[in-house]
Amino acid sequence: MQGTIMYAPGDVRVEERPDPTIEKSTDAVIRLAATCVCGSDLWPYRGVEQPHHQPMGHEYVGTVEQIGDDVRTVRVGDFVVGSFMASDNTCEICLDGYQSRCVRGEFAGAGGAQSEMLRVPLADGTLVATPGTPDADLVPSLLAASDVLGTGWFGAVAAAVGPGKTVAVVGDGAVGLLGILAATQLGAERIIAMSRHASRQQLAREFGATDIVEERGDEGVARIKELTHGYGAHSVIEAVGTQESMQQAIRAARPGGHVGYVGVSHGVELAGEELFFSGVHLHGGPAPVRRFLPELIDLIFRREIDPGKVFDLTLPLSEAAEGYRAMDERRAIKVLLQP
Amino acid sequence: MQGTIMYAPGDVRVEERPDPTIEKSTDAVIRLAATCVCGSDLWPYRGVEQPHHQPMGHEYVGTVEQIGDDVRTVRVGDFVVGSFMASDNTCEICLDGYQSRCVRGEFAGAGGAQSEMLRVPLADGTLVATPGTPDADLVPSLLAASDVLGTGWFGAVAAAVGPGKTVAVVGDGAVGLLGILAATQLGAERIIAMSRHASRQQLAREFGATDIVEERGDEGVARIKELTHGYGAHSVIEAVGTQESMQQAIRAARPGGHVGYVGVSHGVELAGEELFFSGVHLHGGPAPVRRFLPELIDLIFRREIDPGKVFDLTLPLSEAAEGYRAMDERRAIKVLLQP
Repeated sequence: MQGTIMYAPGDVRVEERPDPTIEKSTDAVIRLAATCVCGSDLWPYRGVEQPHHQPMGHEYVGTVEQIGDDVRTVRVGDFVVGSFMASDNTCEICLDGYQSRCVRGEFAGAGGAQSEMLRVPLADGTLVATPGTPDADLVPSLLAASDVLGTGWFGAVAAAVGPGKTVAVVGDGAVGLLGILAATQLGAERIIAMSRHASRQQLAREFGATDIVEERGDEGVARIKELTHGYGAHSVIEAVGTQESMQQAIRAARPGGHVGYVGVSHGVELAGEELFFSGVHLHGGPAPVRRFLPELIDLIFRREIDPGKVFDLTLPLSEAAEGYRAMDERRAIKVLLQP
Repeated sequence: MQGTIMYAPGDVRVEERPDPTIEKSTDAVIRLAATCVCGSDLWPYRGVEQPHHQPMGHEYVGTVEQIGDDVRTVRVGDFVVGSFMASDNTCEICLDGYQSRCVRGEFAGAGGAQSEMLRVPLADGTLVATPGTPDADLVPSLLAASDVLGTGWFGAVAAAVGPGKTVAVVGDGAVGLLGILAATQLGAERIIAMSRHASRQQLAREFGATDIVEERGDEGVARIKELTHGYGAHSVIEAVGTQESMQQAIRAARPGGHVGYVGVSHGVELAGEELFFSGVHLHGGPAPVRRFLPELIDLIFRREIDPGKVFDLTLPLSEAAEGYRAMDERRAIKVLLQP
């Protein structure tokens, strides 16, 4: 099959790789209907993390082609969505809704989802079958559910978004934008998108943002305070993962407010004293996307949400390298790859 | 009146000071029935913070002697309990339960509560009158409510303690011990006290601890994991405020668990990446004691809790210096001073 390998920062190639096979009796092998490039793939692409000749991609939707002997809940021919973290969905941590930290969990993207086929471990706990084969126009939204939508949704839930709340969103990538969509769905009264890119501002508004703040850092925080009678936001979704964005998120929240942080932390150091006196609730981490999949699939099938709009560039899988470049240069919000 | 001043680290003196007076129409002046030394007073005493000839003490119960013209809810003669943070109890932050971060808040201990009298700002929002004058044996418990009980209680609430939960408590000072009492009241199934001092272990058990762990740091974390089928505690109350204690608390919690941290942070730096992948909820800060006072006073008057047990040494106010020494040397858990 064709699959994507990152050889070194900036060096992504699609090449012939062995077809994945069932390795454990709990595995499934799926044929991908669509896959994509993740903002987190840019960390190694930019050399912030060192790639080591690794298969890339961890977002996937597709059709089950093979299952192991112990797989019970998905069948060959099912159209499925799964999370980037495989989970048994039966341990205490999964039952508490933290499937991304399942005690038997493993990375579902180990084989590389930017490819034609993928082996998914712990298929019963990881994959959710859709109600029949989706119309083609729903596929991008279902693909979004496998990571960026689930992650933005978790950010909103971790930030305790709800009716009557004012929500600020730090980060205008796909996750931040879908955090806005989630905040809308969860009933937020006011949603402030922090963005200085016109095309992203527009999508933010389509997803439900009521205000745009272009300032960053302390100036951005000051604007949020101005917009909230000096109190700060009730809820802040952090979707970047840098020192500046975390500080901005914590400072933009009111005392007793909630910061949901889903940008993968890179080089962040939080000063304990500032955090202590901020009085905020802080929660985040790798999103337990699996928790939300049934609800998200339902919303997508009922056409109540259209998260697939974050894909503003579609390329054949063979042009994955161009997809990386477009995202790195911020020419595209998110790139869908067609195997 | 007699009042306590810290001149320099280790140098605490009780001396004649001017009686406090009504300075603003929202003030009250109270005559103290009892006061005490706080674990946080040891930071400047030990030179970790620099004292500047400052009046000491921020925990107080007593009788209202004077009120300003705009005070409505407390009257001269009322026996009252207040928090170390004065609050209007009417702003949005107060109404959300974060009175320690009231937008008009100020430190209630500015005049120094280790004295015979104290001016309390924002009396209506800050002070809670008890249902009549308490029996003398209830006074220590009411005094505990003004800070250490309210702080331990907030730690337990911030750690989402509740029925069915396993709770670990880091720190065996008065706040940690009263966090155990709070966890018991909030219905925790299992409470693990981390302590290596026999007398504190005994009080921990009296307050409801079901297990004692003597190990600290990574060994302590390993013991907590052993006691929780490898998962970690659902809830961890952190009541110290150091780098080691915060790390211990975060590592002892399971993914999706809650850390309530109420030890005033000193020199803590949290690595963003570890925090991100821990998947814990983190909440804490200066406790909004005022939120809990009505409930705590009620529990104390109904003699359902006896938090006054944390006072294991009682001295006349004039011997405050000995009180500091006893706590510094860990000869006493907490010292009550009688004006």
